[in-house]
This record gives sequence, C-alpha cells and structure tokens, in this order.
Amino acid sequence: MTIKTISLVTDNKEEFINITSIIDRLITKEDVKEGTVHVFVPHTTAGLMINECADPNVAIDLKEYLDILVPSDRKYLHKEGNSSAHIKAIITGSCLNIPVLNSKMLLGTWQGIFFCEFDGPRNRSIHISI
Amino acid sequence: MTIKTISLVTDNKEEFINITSIIDRLITKEDVKEGTVHVFVPHTTAGLMINECADPNVAIDLKEYLDILVPSDRKYLHKEGNSSAHIKAIITGSCLNIPVLNSKMLLGTWQGIFFCEFDGPRNRSIHISI
Amino acid sequence: MTIKTISLVTDNKEEFINITSIIDRLITKEDVKEGTVHVFVPHTTAGLMINECADPNVAIDLKEYLDILVPSDRKYLHKEGNSSAHIKAIITGSCLNIPVLNSKMLLGTWQGIFFCEFDGPRNRSIHISI
Repeated sequence: MTIKTISLVTDNKEEFINITSIIDRLITKEDVKEGTVHVFVPHTTAGLMINECADPNVAIDLKEYLDILVPSDRKYLHKEGNSSAHIKAIITGSCLNIPVLNSKMLLGTWQGIFFCEFDGPRNRSIHISI
Repeated sequence: MTIKTISLVTDNKEEFINITSIIDRLITKEDVKEGTVHVFVPHTTAGLMINECADPNVAIDLKEYLDILVPSDRKYLHKEGNSSAHIKAIITGSCLNIPVLNSKMLLGTWQGIFFCEFDGPRNRSIHISI
Repeated sequence: MTIKTISLVTDNKEEFINITSIIDRLITKEDVKEGTVHVFVPHTTAGLMINECADPNVAIDLKEYLDILVPSDRKYLHKEGNSSAHIKAIITGSCLNIPVLNSKMLLGTWQGIFFCEFDGPRNRSIHISI
C-alpha cells in the first residue's frame, strides 16, 4: 500500500470540488490489478462524497439542501460559530473506499468524487491510499 | 483481492433490499482467514446501509423518515426531478467495509446489509471486493 | 490483517465516546509501515463518527442537532420505540477507514474517533482490523 497526500486550496465558504481526475492520475501510476483505493479527509469541517458529476446542478442542490437540513445561522454551543460545518461533515463522512480494476476505479458512468468544503476558504489536504 | 459484480433489478421507486446472503455466499467461496469485504454501489441515486434486518418495520421507518428529511416534491435545480434521490444517496453513502473472520462477516446479531433504491425501478449493480 | 474486538459499556441513552486512544494503542503494537485501519460497529442503534475532539461542545452540538433532525418522540412503526436511534445510526454510519503510516493514524490535528451510542445504556463492542 502507498499513501499519497494531495493539497487543495478552497476559495469559498462552501464549495464541492471534483477530485476524480486527481485520484485517477495517482492510480494510473501504480500497477493495481485488483484492489481498493481509500480516500480520507483529515479535517473536521470538510467531507467527501460520491455523486453525479455530469450536471453541476446536482452538487448545487446538495449544497443548498444540506444548508436547509443544518442551517448555519442557528444557535450552537461551540463558540467558533462553525458547528453546522461540523455536522455537515458528519452527514457526508470523511472516508471512502472505491474498487480498482486494472489501475482504474470502478466508478459508475455518472459518479464523481467530490471534496466538500463547509468552512472555507482554507488550505486542505486529502490522503489517498492505493 | 477479488472483485465480484452482482446485478439487481429493483421493482419500485424506493426499495431497500437485503443483500446479506448474497455477500455471504461470495465470501464462503473465498478462503479468508482475517480480512475485510468492501461493498460499493456505482450509482448516484442508490446507496448502501447496514441496519436491523429482523423487523421489516425498521426499514420502512427509515425509508419514510428519509422522505420527511428530503422531500421529493420540493423544487430543485436539477431538471431530471430526482435530486432528492441524489441527496438520500449521500446520506446513506455508497461504500461499506465489513470485517471478515474465517470466511464469515463479523456482523452483529441484528445487522443486515441493504441496497437502497431511491429512483427505481432500474437495473442496478454492486461491486464486492473480498 | 489482524482483527481485534474491544468492549465498551455506555452509561446514558445517548453518548459520544472518544475511542481514538484505544485504537492508537492497538496500532502501536502492530508493525504497520503503510496501511489502513478499519473500524466497525456490529450494532444497529450505535454508530461511528470522526470529528472535533478539542472542544467537547462540538459533540454536544452534534448530539442535539441529530435529535432535532430525527426526533425520538415521533410516531414510528417499529414497536420497540427506538427507530430514531436506528435512523441516527444510518446518518453517522457503522464503518470507518483511516490511513496508517509508521504505526500511527493519519488523523488531522482536531480529529478524534467517536463511538456514538443512540440507545443506551448497553454493553457494546467494536471490531478493529489492522
């Protein structure tokens, strides 16, 4: 197993970034016949999701609906004021595993892997274990 | 590692199908002393969950409550009209990993693995990496 | 791969217990250069989450907000009366994977791993595959 760490700079408070091609490139370099790639976000106000990458409106709907489910302007105990970002990170989750066959991820036609920023802009990193 | 792909045909718009015995049978054929099985759904309007398989009412409660959390009749940007299915797929997630000991999954007494259809009926597939 | 099972006794109906140091200790004993640790909860009314461990108010905000999203006093079909605990377990999830480098988990500065009790007090167990 090899662990690679990539860096991301986010530009907005909330932003979903398609990282599929970055992971694709890392896997192509390794010689994996049959295996799994693990993706992990070492942050508590950011998450990961797999969903449609064809129509960008799906990601917008997701972002907007998460904000309806967990409004950021509600009163929370945590003084930093970003509790809704922590809760959204729990809903999306911070780890994924995707099957790999002949150095290619077995993603569905419409699937993309997204890094979900909930409390940006920030410098972020992602660990990818192949 | 071996990757097996199984096919499912769903009959309803929303449906939770217990796939535990299908995965059990695949694992029994492999000789795994200590390991992990990874389950992955290559779709963006379907998900996976582990929950109670004894009382079928638990799955019904889950399905109904997800629809209260993410109503399908709300207005979304995505023109296909199935944004709530995409959001439900994010909440349940599309990958699982379960420990395996002596070719048996270490599931709890009440645990079953369910495929969650949110936008059926459709032909679906599931990748299982042992 | 080695699978270890740890036991936990929860004291309250709902409780989030930081289990990071327990997993740390198990990994230190194994000699892992580059790998992944899989954490699995074999229960249907308990879950796992990775989130902030510095300010305990974050866990309280999460616990309280999950109860706003999925109120326990609503009417459900499941007769045992703990459907909200089952639904919360689906939202947090029951499995995690975390990258390991030189026998240390690559968690972020603020990340801790929490066992989430939603229907205690109970005797619980957690499987950890290294």
